Amino acid sequence: MDEFALIDSIKQQTYKQPSIIKGVGDDAAIFRQSAQDIVTAVDTFVEDVHFTRSTMDPFHIGYRSLAANISDLAAMGADPAFYLVSIVIPQSWNENELNGLYQGMRDMGNAYNMDLIGGDTVSGKVLTLSITVIGYVPRDKARYRSMAKPGDIVFVTGTFGDSAAGLFMLNHPDEYTDEAYFYRKHRMPAIHADFVSELEFLPRLALNDISDGIANEANELAEASHVSLTIYEDKLPVSTHFHQFTEDQQFKWKLFGGEDFELMGTVPASGWEDVKQMAASTQTQVTDIGYVESSGNSDHGAFLIGRNQIKKRLEKKGYTHLKQVKKNE
Amino acid sequence: MDEFALIDSIKQQTYKQPSIIKGVGDDAAIFRQSAQDIVTAVDTFVEDVHFTRSTMDPFHIGYRSLAANISDLAAMGADPAFYLVSIVIPQSWNENELNGLYQGMRDMGNAYNMDLIGGDTVSGKVLTLSITVIGYVPRDKARYRSMAKPGDIVFVTGTFGDSAAGLFMLNHPDEYTDEAYFYRKHRMPAIHADFVSELEFLPRLALNDISDGIANEANELAEASHVSLTIYEDKLPVSTHFHQFTEDQQFKWKLFGGEDFELMGTVPASGWEDVKQMAASTQTQVTDIGYVESSGNSDHGAFLIGRNQIKKRLEKKGYTHLKQVKKNE
Repeated sequence: MDEFALIDSIKQQTYKQPSIIKGVGDDAAIFRQSAQDIVTAVDTFVEDVHFTRSTMDPFHIGYRSLAANISDLAAMGADPAFYLVSIVIPQSWNENELNGLYQGMRDMGNAYNMDLIGGDTVSGKVLTLSITVIGYVPRDKARYRSMAKPGDIVFVTGTFGDSAAGLFMLNHPDEYTDEAYFYRKHRMPAIHADFVSELEFLPRLALNDISDGIANEANELAEASHVSLTIYEDKLPVSTHFHQFTEDQQFKWKLFGGEDFELMGTVPASGWEDVKQMAASTQTQVTDIGYVESSGNSDHGAFLIGRNQIKKRLEKKGYTHLKQVKKNE
Repeated sequence: MDEFALIDSIKQQTYKQPSIIKGVGDDAAIFRQSAQDIVTAVDTFVEDVHFTRSTMDPFHIGYRSLAANISDLAAMGADPAFYLVSIVIPQSWNENELNGLYQGMRDMGNAYNMDLIGGDTVSGKVLTLSITVIGYVPRDKARYRSMAKPGDIVFVTGTFGDSAAGLFMLNHPDEYTDEAYFYRKHRMPAIHADFVSELEFLPRLALNDISDGIANEANELAEASHVSLTIYEDKLPVSTHFHQFTEDQQFKWKLFGGEDFELMGTVPASGWEDVKQMAASTQTQVTDIGYVESSGNSDHGAFLIGRNQIKKRLEKKGYTHLKQVKKNE
């Protein structure tokens, strides 16, 4: 299969987004959007850095990679619309596996009526998937990390640590309860773009997606908003069978595990009932886990009130996926 | 240097595009565009597949990679506005080299007032650069490959084969005339987005950028437009000192060399004077190299009239950068 045959096989025959003007097949894609603001982000996934084929099928790799990108759009309050896929293909991947990878993206994308409108396919030594997503947000309704204010309630969607637990189970085969649930949370995370859309009417909302662990993202939110953000350890939502793991594992995974792709938000107390109602209407679990207060113009950051009721600074310890860039040699 | 330090070092302090709403620093970037259509494309460049450090400095790699992307926008008739950079960084690249790479992109981007509005930085084994570009085109003024019609004049910008010649010279050190010119054409190709913008008033124009060699792109244009496209070998523009190479080298490089990033277009004969005038006003070399005719609803493709005046089918032999995807095993 050459590049042209691959492109033919992944090219959509029809497009779902009414704003599309020109999809795949020319030097670039074109769309039109005059009513809303345009939101865009890119994420890259490298084999054996971000995923391995020993724990995920090609389908899962495609599905989860696009999910991670859609999560960035959701965290801005945006509706997903388009994606472009740049892929580096090594000889170790065959046609069936590539089809599986694209099928995974297609399934995830279809859940949000997204269209694949461009990309690039090149040869190389390591499978590398770089996905650009484009979405729409009503004007001036983008939800920034910097929008948290003292007095806000801190909430999260879903449960924490399941993805890290699933990955652990895949790497350490043993007797576990409800393996299928944890595998699915690791391989096919749920994204809450629909829930976020429903919150459009709220005048103010800060949002961040939790790709690198709640400790990391809570700090990002606090720093961007120049506030102090406190969360209660025992309010962090976990799944029914999460308690089968050791206390250490649970603590590490739920705070630093990352890749659950849940959302963390802050909302004025007056908006909390609305958040809960919209969550219910979109079958999204939401939990109030803490509060925002003034940091007195300095010492912005995140704090954790542990089970012993002691409040400590919550250190960033999430994945950063880039630790070894060397100083000049 | 960790991910955050790298992002800080490449983050723009101010943005040039008036349509920007939110640049780097949240989950995604946001812009607003109600008057024009939005054009987007992505291209990926892998070390030792698309470039090597033995023939290019990091600065050149950055410069040329973004140039290749802008070339796609120009070929749609679009004005460049934004870019996002996804990079896989191996341990073999140090901070200085990375800064050079981003400086190359910055220099190229600044020539078009482009803003860097997002990206991703991850670790991996092979330096891989994936650039997404976004531009604007006046409504219904996009220039497709499919817009060529019988009777059109076929024209190209610039000269052909210089990039391939420059690469050859870099790989085969010897006594050459005007090495610096050929090196520059290989490392820092000129892009003609300004010329294309000036042609906006023309009612119809087909455009394609020549990244994979003129033989390949002429066929793409002919197939997309369902026409036959004929070019004269001896009208293909070459640079002053291109004749220092053998006949075989010249033939191969100018037709199949690729990566000159020149444009090929077709325009009704009535518009040719305008094209020449706008070329002159933007210091762009344009040359009439052939003609479009009806292919009788079949046998679309490109033809070459050689120096012997014999007309032959021009086979696609350009780079495709993906030759080894295997059938299922």
